[in-house]
Amino acid sequence: MSRSPGPPMPEARAGRRAVHEERTRRFIVDATKELIRTEGLAQLNTRRIAETASFAVGTLYNYFADFSEILAYVAADYLDEVYTVVLHDIEGIDNFEQRIRRATGIYAGYFLKNPEAFKVVFMAPIDPIPVALEQHLLIPRVAVLVHETFVQAGETGLVPKHHCELIEDMLGSTVHGMLLFHITGRSHSTAEAVLDRIDEVIRLLLSG
Amino acid sequence: MSRSPGPPMPEARAGRRAVHEERTRRFIVDATKELIRTEGLAQLNTRRIAETASFAVGTLYNYFADFSEILAYVAADYLDEVYTVVLHDIEGIDNFEQRIRRATGIYAGYFLKNPEAFKVVFMAPIDPIPVALEQHLLIPRVAVLVHETFVQAGETGLVPKHHCELIEDMLGSTVHGMLLFHITGRSHSTAEAVLDRIDEVIRLLLSG
Repeated sequence: MSRSPGPPMPEARAGRRAVHEERTRRFIVDATKELIRTEGLAQLNTRRIAETASFAVGTLYNYFADFSEILAYVAADYLDEVYTVVLHDIEGIDNFEQRIRRATGIYAGYFLKNPEAFKVVFMAPIDPIPVALEQHLLIPRVAVLVHETFVQAGETGLVPKHHCELIEDMLGSTVHGMLLFHITGRSHSTAEAVLDRIDEVIRLLLSG
Repeated sequence: MSRSPGPPMPEARAGRRAVHEERTRRFIVDATKELIRTEGLAQLNTRRIAETASFAVGTLYNYFADFSEILAYVAADYLDEVYTVVLHDIEGIDNFEQRIRRATGIYAGYFLKNPEAFKVVFMAPIDPIPVALEQHLLIPRVAVLVHETFVQAGETGLVPKHHCELIEDMLGSTVHGMLLFHITGRSHSTAEAVLDRIDEVIRLLLSG
């Protein structure tokens, strides 16, 4: 978030300004998501975002360093969205295997329904990842949720403790590999077939 | 491959023409690979390809339907390259686990060294996949090689037959998921760490 230089402001005014900046950034992220939804990521650029948000392109740069930073915030937003959906959906599921199968299915289903979101979060050239979003993008909250579930399973002996990390890693990379193939058209499997396959993988992985 | 309409040609002339077309297509594919190597996929377009190959943009379209078709042929070429490397490297390795570990390591290593190739083969918008390349791009020769190795392992009882297909699938999607994360900067692992992790995954998968 860039700030124009100037004399120190009274606290209330600085606070109002921060709120305004935050709101404008939110507005730009939402406009960008709407554009991605309607036109796809391939057509996206700062000119189209500025047009949609009724800003001059230069104004965008008061709020974001560049196109890549906008994408980073949009990616973080998609990750928040899928986290909220997953969290809501696994509430009350205590059984380890059920919890992992459900969380993974909901997560994969989200990206199968929103392939452009997958492209933003995992494929788009976001470089550098803004420091403020590093944790958010590199260790997404869904990954933390799954990790905690695995740690618990390791503690209670449901998964061999020394394999927990590797199995968790494999689960993550398999799911994203399958999503990649499907979303970029490198496999002809239907979305349903992908979900079924992911479920089979989990059952095999968790069967010991 | 497009052909301008015209009267039927004598066979020898048609043959020379086919050879010329094939040679020109090869030349364009090579020029495109060179551009990707030096400037990256993000900067690539038909104008840059035409400039590099010293053609008018319109001339490119005598040989390829569009940009996507050029990318498809470049992708097929990278897949041929990695296949040749893998095949050469596993020659004489008869032990199943050694063969799979080596093939996978060489394969992953190729894309870690050539991240732009990974982007062309697995991420770039190739749509539609040309009919002539469907087999080539959707069931790459390395995948066939791995598949045959697994079938043999299934026959001889080294891998439970009913799990062969699923394990093979997991291996493929895990490797590509890990490559994706690394290549798009969504993980901070080094290339070496990715290769080690892939090897660990294979050993776990093949341990039954």
